Amino acid sequence: MAIITLLTDFGLQDEYAGLMKAVIASINPKASIIDITHGIDSQDIVQAAYILKSAFPYFPPGGIHVVVVDPGVGSQRKAIAVKCPNGIFVAPDNGVLSLVLEENQVESAVTITDSSYFRQPVSHTFHGRDIFAPVAGHLSLGIDISRLGPRISSRQLAVIDLPRPGLRSDRVLYGQIVARDRFGNLLTNIDADQLTRFCRPELWQSLAIKIANRTIDGICETYACVAPENLLAVMGSRGYLEISVNRGDAGRILKVSKGAPVVVARPGEPDAQP
Amino acid sequence: MAIITLLTDFGLQDEYAGLMKAVIASINPKASIIDITHGIDSQDIVQAAYILKSAFPYFPPGGIHVVVVDPGVGSQRKAIAVKCPNGIFVAPDNGVLSLVLEENQVESAVTITDSSYFRQPVSHTFHGRDIFAPVAGHLSLGIDISRLGPRISSRQLAVIDLPRPGLRSDRVLYGQIVARDRFGNLLTNIDADQLTRFCRPELWQSLAIKIANRTIDGICETYACVAPENLLAVMGSRGYLEISVNRGDAGRILKVSKGAPVVVARPGEPDAQP
Amino acid sequence: MAIITLLTDFGLQDEYAGLMKAVIASINPKASIIDITHGIDSQDIVQAAYILKSAFPYFPPGGIHVVVVDPGVGSQRKAIAVKCPNGIFVAPDNGVLSLVLEENQVESAVTITDSSYFRQPVSHTFHGRDIFAPVAGHLSLGIDISRLGPRISSRQLAVIDLPRPGLRSDRVLYGQIVARDRFGNLLTNIDADQLTRFCRPELWQSLAIKIANRTIDGICETYACVAPENLLAVMGSRGYLEISVNRGDAGRILKVSKGAPVVVARPGEPDAQP
Repeated sequence: MAIITLLTDFGLQDEYAGLMKAVIASINPKASIIDITHGIDSQDIVQAAYILKSAFPYFPPGGIHVVVVDPGVGSQRKAIAVKCPNGIFVAPDNGVLSLVLEENQVESAVTITDSSYFRQPVSHTFHGRDIFAPVAGHLSLGIDISRLGPRISSRQLAVIDLPRPGLRSDRVLYGQIVARDRFGNLLTNIDADQLTRFCRPELWQSLAIKIANRTIDGICETYACVAPENLLAVMGSRGYLEISVNRGDAGRILKVSKGAPVVVARPGEPDAQP
Repeated sequence: MAIITLLTDFGLQDEYAGLMKAVIASINPKASIIDITHGIDSQDIVQAAYILKSAFPYFPPGGIHVVVVDPGVGSQRKAIAVKCPNGIFVAPDNGVLSLVLEENQVESAVTITDSSYFRQPVSHTFHGRDIFAPVAGHLSLGIDISRLGPRISSRQLAVIDLPRPGLRSDRVLYGQIVARDRFGNLLTNIDADQLTRFCRPELWQSLAIKIANRTIDGICETYACVAPENLLAVMGSRGYLEISVNRGDAGRILKVSKGAPVVVARPGEPDAQP
Repeated sequence: MAIITLLTDFGLQDEYAGLMKAVIASINPKASIIDITHGIDSQDIVQAAYILKSAFPYFPPGGIHVVVVDPGVGSQRKAIAVKCPNGIFVAPDNGVLSLVLEENQVESAVTITDSSYFRQPVSHTFHGRDIFAPVAGHLSLGIDISRLGPRISSRQLAVIDLPRPGLRSDRVLYGQIVARDRFGNLLTNIDADQLTRFCRPELWQSLAIKIANRTIDGICETYACVAPENLLAVMGSRGYLEISVNRGDAGRILKVSKGAPVVVARPGEPDAQP
């Protein structure tokens, strides 16, 4: 049984996600569809790229992952399908796959051009329904991605300029906030590998994390390591450093939004500022 | 495998949609349930009628479509089941099926009265769970709608007074906004057929679309036909004229809400006002 | 076919519910997953306890019910699995099962400790994904809960101090608001049994319901028993007394929130105040 996942910015207020499922069910009624989320901030390709990368490893191999965050719908941007060892991605060629493809080998990639796999007529404003969903439906029936259109090199795929964390000095690592979740937890773009290269995990307790004129002492393992209503930094479940408040909302308390800078400083760097 | 679709104003904050699925699964565990959306504005029958009409064609034939936007729950309003060539509709008899039944032939219609198909006890406030969901579950097992209650003529079905678009003169077509989506796109009640009768598609570029003291020049094919942050009019994916902003939120920028007038004027009608 | 239900405060904005489904599908691709809701107010164990109790009877017997409202994630709170005649509950041991277990006999209960049923590595902040979802996946394959860890007595399970309704005198019953739904209906903690012990249903029309300086005369059967925009009290579909406005939003009109007191008074108690 093929699994098709959906990751979009369509929200659930409207019927858009429902129509993608309708089109898939029309092609393959036995496909099993799992919503990763439809709650990506409207047209936020960067956020979607981070969520896709961190969510992908939790799905069983062989899934078809449809990502539709598509501000350029109807323009000249291409549609692509990319086959990796553990799954196939179907998306607009706007860089939303950038991060997941850094960690998964591309076996083959095509531009999706064969309109016999589309739902006709194809609208200019909703390729999720008319192109991506029906293509996923057909892929779930076992067709090879090579049937969808001409092969392209993985080097030709669009890449977005993601906000990368980096070293300001060997004592200060900087990054930024890339998403805020329902609880107000703030996702940074600093992942566990980067933080480990910067500082051995045994010493994370000694680091200072600075955001919005506040300094957090050390990286905790759990929310409960600080008293309720207190700020903390934690290596979050997505594998990225997160800024949280125990039983509270860090986004509301810090009044920061996406793009806000964050720095991680070794002990004795009192002047490091975000 | 039968598909049951759900279209309601229950939202997803509460357990109401989940309980409909629980009741269906208790009757037919193999039914496949697809949410069209539960995000219809609270008790907005008109919006639901438009969304149902535009969504229905995307589902495979033979589905059972449950529509619960039901401000009159517990009053004397009837519950109905209507069989059309491509599917069965189950809904309160409040006109929410008005638009979809204009385009789909009614093979038979019944009032739902046989309480042996209900979940007992039947509450006075949640017929979605106690009547519509169990009836859909039984229909998905193959019972005929005639088992549900006495036949009624399609002319006896409730019809709502939908805000119809019309001609002010042969040079000015008027309509109104009937829904606003997650992205802020404003759905008008002017569909492609009506607009085509008013003006050949080749000339749509020459029309003036007026809304909220703004005039939009021509109807675009894609959002990207104007610069980011600019207003446009587009024949939307639902088959209705929509007012949008490229990479922006038209509802917020125009500060209009449902019911707002819109006019489409031929060239040389500078005084046409919405 | 096993049904797994999910009741959480994760919302749908993020990928958290999607990841629980991914993990379940990795273990048992045939499991059928139903969302009760992910819209429990953030970390509100009391609300979740009421919703679970009222939703549970609508599901077919044999289901696996996963409840993740878990402010203590990563702390010393235990994870538990509880087997009842009509289903199995999997949850943090924080009292969220308190109400449902008052009405369902506990056949056996265990603390979940065998990490071979977890997804590794186990994060400190998302046990929904790493412990509760995989355990539910394994249970849906038929393993007995005794495999998950050591048995505990049902008396050892955490119980929360729920806001219980009670008698102020034999003429005045008091309670409080425990949830507000999408429509603004206000759920009290006074259930039908309690109200019936206080006053025979034939006389409910004569009661006075007081909330926020307003007095409602009698308990209605339907929203439509009062004119549109008017306040009413109704024995709601969840089996609890609810305060509503016909075609309106009681929460907004009364400006009350969770915890607000409500009293039900027999006739001739003009001074009873909430």
